Amino acid sequence: MAKRARSIEQLISQLNKLPGIGSKTAQRLAYHVIDMKEEEVKELSNSMLEAKQNVHKCKKCQNFTDEDLCYICSDLTRDKSTICVVEYPKDVEALERSNSYHGLYHVLHGTISPSRAINAGDIGIGSLVKRLETEDIKEIIVATNPTTEGDTTALYISRLISPLGIKVSRIGYGLPVGGDLEYYDEITISTALENRRILNKD
Amino acid sequence: MAKRARSIEQLISQLNKLPGIGSKTAQRLAYHVIDMKEEEVKELSNSMLEAKQNVHKCKKCQNFTDEDLCYICSDLTRDKSTICVVEYPKDVEALERSNSYHGLYHVLHGTISPSRAINAGDIGIGSLVKRLETEDIKEIIVATNPTTEGDTTALYISRLISPLGIKVSRIGYGLPVGGDLEYYDEITISTALENRRILNKD
Repeated sequence: MAKRARSIEQLISQLNKLPGIGSKTAQRLAYHVIDMKEEEVKELSNSMLEAKQNVHKCKKCQNFTDEDLCYICSDLTRDKSTICVVEYPKDVEALERSNSYHGLYHVLHGTISPSRAINAGDIGIGSLVKRLETEDIKEIIVATNPTTEGDTTALYISRLISPLGIKVSRIGYGLPVGGDLEYYDEITISTALENRRILNKD
Repeated sequence: MAKRARSIEQLISQLNKLPGIGSKTAQRLAYHVIDMKEEEVKELSNSMLEAKQNVHKCKKCQNFTDEDLCYICSDLTRDKSTICVVEYPKDVEALERSNSYHGLYHVLHGTISPSRAINAGDIGIGSLVKRLETEDIKEIIVATNPTTEGDTTALYISRLISPLGIKVSRIGYGLPVGGDLEYYDEITISTALENRRILNKD
């Protein structure tokens, strides 16, 4: 292993911890950082700290925000009678890009996963049920990913909420099974929304 | 385009400026940063600033270092009669990994490139010639990449230095033409070093 200046070594090992950044990419990025203007490096490092320090969960829908309520929850023009339940904030972005949904969201920040010991209590299901007490919700669209864990979570939510007399639907299968919502194009997502099926039909 | 919290938007746009980081990866990294512990984000952002602020060019060989002289120039066991000329600091790392060279280096930080208006005066050729006045150098191995620009630079250095009676060699072609030194395995690099040919033979 080549020796390097201590500061470079340290930066490479920090970058290497990021997801999808292998040792080669970490090295390239580190040398790029050294070649950047100091002002630019400051901007980059500050924007990381700022994002970490300012961003928290919206107290209503748990999406990331730097305000009290996120921009969707505080938007008066949205349909307040529908909640679309997603796994992660990036899924909200994907749905918003499709421009085919105008209701509210609820971000679970995970899925039920027995194999990874993640239970319903570990994700945002409790806060979803609490919302149903104070908000006048007519339908809940479960848009978790079409994976085993996403399906399990959808089923759990459906069984939990059906007794409350609220319609629960699952986002339509326009998506290949095993996929990740984040990667689909606007049309696929919009079709999937149209084709949603009611889970508690009767 | 989806609206996002301002701090997230800013972080994504900063990350997006890095080489090889597209908007999708930038988004993924930004959300990862928000999920990291604040302590970890601080470590990462500090290591960027520290690397930028502490790392400078070795006053002898121009390799990156956080000392006055880099660890190679200050290593008494290295062969002080040979200088291996490379394009970038990452090339020093690649050569060191091959464990087949024990002389000194000189880092050009670029190549002569008429098409990008980079002349001999813009890279570390002047500082190389200056070294030859004070150091007792027997051979210069030019290990620029086997590309048009790398070859042009090698030829230029050979013509400049030959009159001084110093042997100038070019790293051997064990490497596919058009490649980048950084990616080769130890054996290829070590073979290429062995097969180096003298440019001013007679």
